[in-house]
Amino acid sequence: MKRPNLQIALDHNSLEDALADCMKVGEIVDIIEVGTILCLQEGQKAIRCLKRMFPNKTIVADTKCADAGGTVARNVAQAGADFMTVICCATLPTMAAAQKEVRELQVELYGNWTMQQARQWRELGINQVIYHQSRDALLAGGSWGEKDLNKVQELIDLGFEVSVTGGLTVETLELFQTMAVATFIAGRGITESKNPEQAAKDFQKKIDQIWK
Amino acid sequence: MKRPNLQIALDHNSLEDALADCMKVGEIVDIIEVGTILCLQEGQKAIRCLKRMFPNKTIVADTKCADAGGTVARNVAQAGADFMTVICCATLPTMAAAQKEVRELQVELYGNWTMQQARQWRELGINQVIYHQSRDALLAGGSWGEKDLNKVQELIDLGFEVSVTGGLTVETLELFQTMAVATFIAGRGITESKNPEQAAKDFQKKIDQIWK
Repeated sequence: MKRPNLQIALDHNSLEDALADCMKVGEIVDIIEVGTILCLQEGQKAIRCLKRMFPNKTIVADTKCADAGGTVARNVAQAGADFMTVICCATLPTMAAAQKEVRELQVELYGNWTMQQARQWRELGINQVIYHQSRDALLAGGSWGEKDLNKVQELIDLGFEVSVTGGLTVETLELFQTMAVATFIAGRGITESKNPEQAAKDFQKKIDQIWK
Repeated sequence: MKRPNLQIALDHNSLEDALADCMKVGEIVDIIEVGTILCLQEGQKAIRCLKRMFPNKTIVADTKCADAGGTVARNVAQAGADFMTVICCATLPTMAAAQKEVRELQVELYGNWTMQQARQWRELGINQVIYHQSRDALLAGGSWGEKDLNKVQELIDLGFEVSVTGGLTVETLELFQTMAVATFIAGRGITESKNPEQAAKDFQKKIDQIWK
């Protein structure tokens, strides 16, 4: 089984805070995500800074794009993003338009999507989905369970590279140990720990242990 | 029937282009929207500029928020936004969190939403929805039809203030003449016309004629 990547989500309210945290963990992780909050606060400048600071890392623009896919994708790709997210309720033409402008499109799964839609995304040539536990839903008491894990496996079986995110810890990685997860996305679990550098290293070490 | 508002959507790639166009029509329209593309390109600075330039106009941040509703809403409200959009596939906890932080939340309707969900949004206390023809879908050949108009009426009957958007022209306003539409949103139909100021005035004049 291919070793999953570790992705850091920078969900900061300001560029300076995001850059400060990324200085600690940017070289340890595999993928750096410019989170939606940061995109909306700082615009494309955040993408530009991170791509220039970490030219060898994959940069994700988590735009959760719902419309005007072509324009949004062209903009973030020009700023330096390798991957971009679209929301699952975007129309197929929006996804197709975005798909043409950026290296890889990732469909972010929220709410009432269906496996039938997922098959349509595959037919469009989309390779990546993000299985996301909503932060707000987590706060309201939801967490990872067998139902989630089964859906992740079903998406893998459809041929997707699946990223998983939402309340992940070093311990919860074990839940996925039989699965070919493409990427684990952690945010505050790393950036708000006492020692973010150590936290990122602990995640990578655990991934190495499980998917050796 | 209450007179519908006219909203200009600033879907520009740069702050300077958006401000230049808004100088022409900002005082004519009722509501100024910082479009998703502009939010993602320029960040909260775009909201701050427009609120300071047009302090008496309602400012909408079209974030199409899908997660972290509380944080995104607090950020755009602090920057000066009166209204903010969430995408219809956001979870109810996300919407509830956003709802607390901004004057009015608007649910943007894309893809596979249902009237049952719409009733849940009403129960959350959400007053506004945006019935949106996707730009990409329009480009692919779709347009306003009876099916759309019936859905808009059904949303009005549920008690929503309904904004409509997507390929609107002065002529297509007549399609809505029997309906209590809250707001018509126009973007390039105004900003890319030969004379944007005149185009905005023509929209307002037509609205006055129909909903006199």
